[in-house]
Amino acid sequence: MQFTQGLHRAVQQTPHAVATVCQDRVHTFIELEDRVARLAGGLRTLGIGRGDRVCILALNSDRYLESYLALAWIGAVVNPANFRWSAAEISYSIQDSECVALIVDDQFAGHLAAIRNDCPTLRTVIHAGDGAVPDGAHSLDALVAGHAPIADLGIGGHELFGIFYTGGTTGAPKGVMLTHLNITSSALSLLAEGAFPDGAVGLHAAPMFHLAGMMMTTGLLLRGGQHVMLPMFRPESVIDLIESRQVTDLLLVPTMLQMLVDFPGIRSRNTASVQRLLYGASPVSEALLDRTMAALPTAALSQVYGMTEVSAVMTVLPPLMHTPEGRARNRLRAAGRASYHVQVKVVDGDDRELPRGEVGEIIARGPNVMQGYLNKPDATVAALRNGWMHSGDMGYMDTDGYVYIVDRLKDMIISGGENIYSVEVENAVARHPSVAAVAVIGIPCAEMGEKVHAAVVLRPGTSLTQDELYAHCKSLIAGYKCPRSLEIRASLPISGAGKVLKTELRKPHWENRERAVS
Amino acid sequence: MQFTQGLHRAVQQTPHAVATVCQDRVHTFIELEDRVARLAGGLRTLGIGRGDRVCILALNSDRYLESYLALAWIGAVVNPANFRWSAAEISYSIQDSECVALIVDDQFAGHLAAIRNDCPTLRTVIHAGDGAVPDGAHSLDALVAGHAPIADLGIGGHELFGIFYTGGTTGAPKGVMLTHLNITSSALSLLAEGAFPDGAVGLHAAPMFHLAGMMMTTGLLLRGGQHVMLPMFRPESVIDLIESRQVTDLLLVPTMLQMLVDFPGIRSRNTASVQRLLYGASPVSEALLDRTMAALPTAALSQVYGMTEVSAVMTVLPPLMHTPEGRARNRLRAAGRASYHVQVKVVDGDDRELPRGEVGEIIARGPNVMQGYLNKPDATVAALRNGWMHSGDMGYMDTDGYVYIVDRLKDMIISGGENIYSVEVENAVARHPSVAAVAVIGIPCAEMGEKVHAAVVLRPGTSLTQDELYAHCKSLIAGYKCPRSLEIRASLPISGAGKVLKTELRKPHWENRERAVS
Repeated sequence: MQFTQGLHRAVQQTPHAVATVCQDRVHTFIELEDRVARLAGGLRTLGIGRGDRVCILALNSDRYLESYLALAWIGAVVNPANFRWSAAEISYSIQDSECVALIVDDQFAGHLAAIRNDCPTLRTVIHAGDGAVPDGAHSLDALVAGHAPIADLGIGGHELFGIFYTGGTTGAPKGVMLTHLNITSSALSLLAEGAFPDGAVGLHAAPMFHLAGMMMTTGLLLRGGQHVMLPMFRPESVIDLIESRQVTDLLLVPTMLQMLVDFPGIRSRNTASVQRLLYGASPVSEALLDRTMAALPTAALSQVYGMTEVSAVMTVLPPLMHTPEGRARNRLRAAGRASYHVQVKVVDGDDRELPRGEVGEIIARGPNVMQGYLNKPDATVAALRNGWMHSGDMGYMDTDGYVYIVDRLKDMIISGGENIYSVEVENAVARHPSVAAVAVIGIPCAEMGEKVHAAVVLRPGTSLTQDELYAHCKSLIAGYKCPRSLEIRASLPISGAGKVLKTELRKPHWENRERAVS
Repeated sequence: MQFTQGLHRAVQQTPHAVATVCQDRVHTFIELEDRVARLAGGLRTLGIGRGDRVCILALNSDRYLESYLALAWIGAVVNPANFRWSAAEISYSIQDSECVALIVDDQFAGHLAAIRNDCPTLRTVIHAGDGAVPDGAHSLDALVAGHAPIADLGIGGHELFGIFYTGGTTGAPKGVMLTHLNITSSALSLLAEGAFPDGAVGLHAAPMFHLAGMMMTTGLLLRGGQHVMLPMFRPESVIDLIESRQVTDLLLVPTMLQMLVDFPGIRSRNTASVQRLLYGASPVSEALLDRTMAALPTAALSQVYGMTEVSAVMTVLPPLMHTPEGRARNRLRAAGRASYHVQVKVVDGDDRELPRGEVGEIIARGPNVMQGYLNKPDATVAALRNGWMHSGDMGYMDTDGYVYIVDRLKDMIISGGENIYSVEVENAVARHPSVAAVAVIGIPCAEMGEKVHAAVVLRPGTSLTQDELYAHCKSLIAGYKCPRSLEIRASLPISGAGKVLKTELRKPHWENRERAVS
């Protein structure tokens, strides 16, 4: 399998169907293929070839998809940068992966001087924007216009597709090496799960640099669906595009989900075209799922649980488990069951499989598992020991194979010798009617080692005290798990992938101290 | 991906669901896993290990599936013998692939002496039957009972799963080498096409040694469906099992389809549980499809076109194209469109892609393409030239990517300088109300080189003359394509895979002569 395969199939079968919609630009599949084949010719003329690494730093757009395709076309390897990172962090990823070129849009052209200064290997800059072309850069549209189409080199399988950097805001960034087979096997398994069926119109609301977005990119491509591009997530823009483009398929990370379904007035808008909603990438409270089902009543919900290192897909919780039947079986709290392409187990510290119901680390094996972390042989060996990817997530499996995530290993709170899973506490806090969003962390405590601390964003016009929150939680979970302190915030710090950055929340509390788990 | 993956998934998710039904034996997935893990232990004790080749010569049964799984469990490579072959042909495949062991059932134990005599590498015989264990053989059930379960070695991906012999009755048999990834990628793509959905009860009516049967085996395993075993195809047995086991999914080759839907009284039986019918492996006339839809009105039909060398799946014609809408667009005559995992093209003799509508050779590329023919480097290089599998099938592609097979390259008739596709003539002949089955071949003709000859099986109580047939065909196709001679037969010679053996039909006409195309 190769990443460009879906484009070839769509050109063969539905050449005149709409492939991409971006602002006022609409391209059919045959037009997209023509642009990609010409851009590939342009890249080759610039001396970019098989195995060369190329960074993309851009908001979602049709040109982002064209860049992905054109790089794969000539066997170049993409480094899709997290645009929430600082220029220094992006420079690190460019240097670590020895990128020879950077594709940048208007939004991030301001980083150019700093990046050029930091990155001696970077010899080419391509501007994928509508504004003025920066000095010394090549215009992507001019490359398309100025070159004849070249043939796809047909590179795929075990060759590298991309290097995806993770963890930039939580510690040393690691470049996750993923092949064409890694990416496409996850996407094909999602299709077998029923994602993006024939006629799908998918909205790229999640950032395309992220593996969740990559699953929409690759899955939609394989099925031959339509890509509607949203440059930057805003709830009203999502609703506008649902209405104007009759979007059928959404893929959202939980923070986006929360902002969308709590957006005032969503119920007065016509979202009835939305047939399916994939969500994942971090834990979701049942309260938020309830609000989602109320706000988007036509959408069949599926959760996908995974991470960059497994090409985003480990387990899938199908729509049936989001119905009252699934809820009655406690399945709404599950992350789903192993998808078709991957094997999933819960193991102890010695990689022995645990009995069902016992909490351990979740590990996975399959064609979707990364080749390793670039330039990090020790981290690679640790993550892939015994041939399985060690997720760093703690969870258990029930008798029907449903996986329940209890926490990230490093987010687990150890208080008075008890393991407290922050996700369980968050679920309890989230059920309070005043709570719009919550993150629970451990903060230092002289007596207990750590104590439970809640950072909360309130819903408009509400209030909450520590005593009210404690009493609310006490009615739902054991007393030792209930928050001992409360911090009301205007927002939570969010990663580019929409995950709450608990390291950021912990930082002021832990200055000059070291956590037992990190 | 590994072949045993679906079993592990099913054991994890639905351990107590029925896995196999064979005669009066019923096993759940956890029972199947236990039997497989013990059989694997037994095989290991017999000295069979990773990379060793093992032949299976048996009718469909639960023990056939257990053998497939246990061999994959320890990394052995299977040679599933075509049981319609002579002992000499089977011995050839055993010698060519250097099998160290043979798994044989009651039906074929009679071949043992001859095979043992021919095959010096064969040191172990395992009896997978209910009758007396042949001298010197080990009982499969005793191996299961007498050994502790061993762990799956986890072998998959690019390691060899099996060597599948093709062409045994048409010329020198060739061993097609297929990996775990080859087999599972085709099966996963079929799932993405909607085959074998959750809750599927599949009937193994096609022989399990054949790649079509292998797709039901692997697809059902991946989805966790139920395997109902039919040892040998008989129409009334198929109907009995549909009724008694509430079969939802059928996979049939055209000759089986014809025998089933023309079986007297099928319409008085309850076949309403059948929701899906996959057919393929050789051309099907529209007339037969009409009778199929009338006889099995609840079944959504899909055609799968492929061959052993591409792990059975190249194109799929979905149910929609079997409706009046599809028929109006002439799609019922198509073999389908490229499935998700594979790229398909129609090319000229120099592998240049032809414009839509022009007839050329159909070629394919993807994770499903074989590694080559065992011990046949020249044939391998010829088949896989330029990295694409050359199917030997002639066809064209329409503007929507639908592939239409016009003939096997070697079945095409060249008459008076005109290319005549036997399939087109067969479609015309099949529309005559007296015709139950037909095969059209070229026979020697002093003036024209070849002339068109029809071998026909009549429907009960009907008759047909050459003049009547010619007049019928002349009303449908050009005169030069119409049969010049007619042969009424009780049956057509059929391969183990259910294909009509045109070489057998041609033989008496071509003795001591050489065809231009062969």
